[in-house]
Amino acid sequence: MANFQCFTLAKRLSLDANLKRAGLEITRLCRSTSLPTAGNTYNPNAGSRTFHTNSEDSHQQGKRSKWRDSSAKKSALVCALASAAGAGLYWTVSKDKNSDKHPKTWQGLRLSLPGKVFAAEIQPGVLRSGLPTYSAADVAAHDSKEKGIWVIYGNGVYDITEYVSQHPGGTKILMAAGKSIEPFWEVYSVHKNDEIFEIMESYRIGNITEVPEKSKSSDANDPYKDEPERSPLLIPSSQKPFNAEPPVQMLADQFLTPNDMFYVRNHLPVPCVCIDNFTLDLKLSTGSPSLTFQQLTKDFPKRSVTAAIQCAGNRRSEMVKVKPVKGLNWGSAAISNAKFSGVSLNELLLRYNVDIDTVRAKYIVFEGLDTQPDGSPYGASIPLELARLLKNDIIVAYEMNGQPLPRDHGYPLRIIIPGVVGARQVKWLNKIYFSPEESTSHWQRRDYKGFNASTDWHNVDFDKSVSISQLPVISAICDPVEGQELEEGAEEVTLKGYAWSGGGRGIIRVDVSADGGKTWHEATLKPNGQTPYHSYAWTLWEADIPLPKGETKTELVVKAVDVSYNVQPDSVAGIWNLRGCLSNAWHRVNVKVPLVEA
Amino acid sequence: MANFQCFTLAKRLSLDANLKRAGLEITRLCRSTSLPTAGNTYNPNAGSRTFHTNSEDSHQQGKRSKWRDSSAKKSALVCALASAAGAGLYWTVSKDKNSDKHPKTWQGLRLSLPGKVFAAEIQPGVLRSGLPTYSAADVAAHDSKEKGIWVIYGNGVYDITEYVSQHPGGTKILMAAGKSIEPFWEVYSVHKNDEIFEIMESYRIGNITEVPEKSKSSDANDPYKDEPERSPLLIPSSQKPFNAEPPVQMLADQFLTPNDMFYVRNHLPVPCVCIDNFTLDLKLSTGSPSLTFQQLTKDFPKRSVTAAIQCAGNRRSEMVKVKPVKGLNWGSAAISNAKFSGVSLNELLLRYNVDIDTVRAKYIVFEGLDTQPDGSPYGASIPLELARLLKNDIIVAYEMNGQPLPRDHGYPLRIIIPGVVGARQVKWLNKIYFSPEESTSHWQRRDYKGFNASTDWHNVDFDKSVSISQLPVISAICDPVEGQELEEGAEEVTLKGYAWSGGGRGIIRVDVSADGGKTWHEATLKPNGQTPYHSYAWTLWEADIPLPKGETKTELVVKAVDVSYNVQPDSVAGIWNLRGCLSNAWHRVNVKVPLVEA
Repeated sequence: MANFQCFTLAKRLSLDANLKRAGLEITRLCRSTSLPTAGNTYNPNAGSRTFHTNSEDSHQQGKRSKWRDSSAKKSALVCALASAAGAGLYWTVSKDKNSDKHPKTWQGLRLSLPGKVFAAEIQPGVLRSGLPTYSAADVAAHDSKEKGIWVIYGNGVYDITEYVSQHPGGTKILMAAGKSIEPFWEVYSVHKNDEIFEIMESYRIGNITEVPEKSKSSDANDPYKDEPERSPLLIPSSQKPFNAEPPVQMLADQFLTPNDMFYVRNHLPVPCVCIDNFTLDLKLSTGSPSLTFQQLTKDFPKRSVTAAIQCAGNRRSEMVKVKPVKGLNWGSAAISNAKFSGVSLNELLLRYNVDIDTVRAKYIVFEGLDTQPDGSPYGASIPLELARLLKNDIIVAYEMNGQPLPRDHGYPLRIIIPGVVGARQVKWLNKIYFSPEESTSHWQRRDYKGFNASTDWHNVDFDKSVSISQLPVISAICDPVEGQELEEGAEEVTLKGYAWSGGGRGIIRVDVSADGGKTWHEATLKPNGQTPYHSYAWTLWEADIPLPKGETKTELVVKAVDVSYNVQPDSVAGIWNLRGCLSNAWHRVNVKVPLVEA
Repeated sequence: MANFQCFTLAKRLSLDANLKRAGLEITRLCRSTSLPTAGNTYNPNAGSRTFHTNSEDSHQQGKRSKWRDSSAKKSALVCALASAAGAGLYWTVSKDKNSDKHPKTWQGLRLSLPGKVFAAEIQPGVLRSGLPTYSAADVAAHDSKEKGIWVIYGNGVYDITEYVSQHPGGTKILMAAGKSIEPFWEVYSVHKNDEIFEIMESYRIGNITEVPEKSKSSDANDPYKDEPERSPLLIPSSQKPFNAEPPVQMLADQFLTPNDMFYVRNHLPVPCVCIDNFTLDLKLSTGSPSLTFQQLTKDFPKRSVTAAIQCAGNRRSEMVKVKPVKGLNWGSAAISNAKFSGVSLNELLLRYNVDIDTVRAKYIVFEGLDTQPDGSPYGASIPLELARLLKNDIIVAYEMNGQPLPRDHGYPLRIIIPGVVGARQVKWLNKIYFSPEESTSHWQRRDYKGFNASTDWHNVDFDKSVSISQLPVISAICDPVEGQELEEGAEEVTLKGYAWSGGGRGIIRVDVSADGGKTWHEATLKPNGQTPYHSYAWTLWEADIPLPKGETKTELVVKAVDVSYNVQPDSVAGIWNLRGCLSNAWHRVNVKVPLVEA
């Protein structure tokens, strides 16, 4: 991994004219994050979190004078931020001019990265007199290269337009354009370094005095008054109910999506659960036990499953381009991956002498504590035949990535049915029963179903369509993103993304193209540590592929193959449906490749 | 079903100018075949096999004079053959001119269909003096509308060009173009009727004296000298080894494919098995039992599974059009469906104290009695994880559709692994064992794998690709066929075909289009009687859809959706691979719709 990243970054940097001039030598790169990872699976989180320098005399050099030189300042910022905004990459600076491992252009530059000695001097983001004051709206209006790129840190406003094109983490920094950069630095925490703060302050253009807006409602009758705090990194597709996805550029960085970055799909207000009064109620032929949270956590062995959960509407925004659909305008990040732990549904039922293999019913129904205005709960079901297939893999989860289930994800309990659409994995779970028919909820009977492209709201018959349970094979490019400008004259591009299939079908191949699908390359898959037919987690992948020569724009494409050799459809048009579900066509990302300026 | 067929045929007939003139009234239609069907599933074989007439005076009319009238002759032939060549349809003739159930154009014609009273007079296909003699090659050269359509019956040669356009069974009669029509009439046996013979003789143009060529080799050293007799209906893609598919137009007529029509995929000569010496040899950790055929059939309960088996190369001929591939040029009929019966693999292993759930290995390997020149057998394997998922559904089959397994299909034993590619369902099975690695056979290691479209013979790495086991979702239009001419001025078209997915994933929707995919209609599925997640049999479907107005040619399309909402890819180009496997793009059939002549 480290080598792979190193190679990639080296190529990026090789294209930076300023860096060429400065002659930076990269000697060591590794990857880092501070987020949870899968114990026995792919672990991208190896590496250190401190800067290293073998330039012993660098400390002696005047640091402020260095930053005043534009070229050096930019290079240093590139250096510092490379470890951070997006890529989480580090390097050290070498004095060894004779190294033949790196091209000459890397040699000669020596950077001073002395650690925290200036901590007392630097107060990033404090109010500074003599600078103009801006509103949050002023900053928000500056969110593109054309309009200028402003970010907020504390009370500081910074114009980083000039810097962005040199950002070694690619254009990931644009995720913060027009917004506060602080939430991103909470994730890429290496940024919180005096050197970076100092560099940042050199881009200071003003102050912001407004207190960040709270989304909390002050209306005591608002059913959404008790919503949980959420990461400002999440990009909402609706506020009430709250639905949001993480920035797609960050999605494929980690095998396990951190809880606060996990996409949120709520259908109703988040219920407030008093854990002492909470019970999980089972309606069984052998009785109707109610289990307290403590009973669940103490009386049963803890079982775990690592699984991707995906909204049926993931990538819906691509369908909208073909023809309008009804639904939240999800991007490509309405999918996340976590390790869920709790009680095995099978073991729970066996405790009450109910054998899932022999129970007489056709469906197993789940209800949540989230309710509609008429008091009826969110509900969903899966066919008993499917429950039998999955049996030991279905978990009544009370933990997510080793933490108590967050409120947005179903605290205290969520039923995890791996390989199945998110909508059936009922959150705030408090009722389980068997039934001769499907859940009668709106979401089971009048939503989350598939139709062909000629079905519209005049002729649709929801009763005739089969409810979505297991999902088809899908993939997406997370980085670069649509419209992104690659490095000037870039000859290669590094793609990163995810691939996943429902039904536990593992991903066996991911094909990527940098010429709209004319030429294909196999991406490098990062094994998810699961077996081919019980592969519930996603498979992250990376690929380093040549760009078509002489083109100033091109279309990047990805398509995945699962263990049953199911493939993704070529076009969105062929799978368009009025609800915009199941949007799993080849994922296409258009990028620009500016010519090298003469 | 009967009504559906009746409606379809009525529409076809309504377009026939001659019939309109004659005024034929259809009063009864039903379907018939003489082939095996699924007991508890879709049964297409209801109906009678005798002609009915309520025209009591029809017998009194001069029969020969009637046939001399061109219009009446054609109508009668239409009438008689409607029950036969392809469609297997019947009707009776009614005198009731006042019936308001049928359009006026059907009324007025009275046919004489008196049964076998002329049997003594008619000797179809005998040598007739005074007629020219033709060779089989002469006949074979007349296999299209342009070149003329000749068929053989006995020693008779017939030019049926004039007749074909009026054939009520559509152009299914073209299956026999340039060949003997006898094998088809063995299936559609209602043709063997004196009336039909008499009509046929009126198209007689000559004699054929050649004895039909036998495929048997006279070379005692030919490893293929002991091949079984095969139905002349099968269309070979290679002779040695023998590989053949049934005429696609006949494929979707029956839920269970008759044994002699089941596609044949042999990799080596068919072994000659002396049943008294035959054993199935197991190599287990608990011992190495050899079971006789009698033990297998007597000592274990008979278990059955109805499953479609498909060659990985089915529909390869479509891939060839994109770019050449290596492999047999299969059409759309390298798939068939049958009920297989035998011993449950799980029960067999348990008898020897081997539990498939706990046995320590990674693969289960199967070997056949068919051998390569070096004596090594055909072999294949599946992952043990997959075997565990399928457990009770894997059958050591000795019966196929209630008959002993035919030699071409593995007599005496074939391992049936439903939902998995045909190549792993080893025929002439005589060895089963567990292994830490895949079968080392050529077909497991250097064949039956998938690659992307940019992989060619210079860069292919078979070791890197996952062996094909479960197959993806597929469908095909069986009728009409590519290039077919529909009825003049037809406004609707009836499509028939199959849909299937590997892994036991049932088909939940089949979309058809008559305008190249711009407009979609849902086909009517014929339930296969299996459950959604253990759906190993195919799903036959039919659809009656409008043709685009004013177009003289159009493209028919089908695509299917399985219970996991996997779909077929739009284009062949996107899934092209150097071996031409897994050709499951939308199936497209181009048809012509001649304008009505003024």
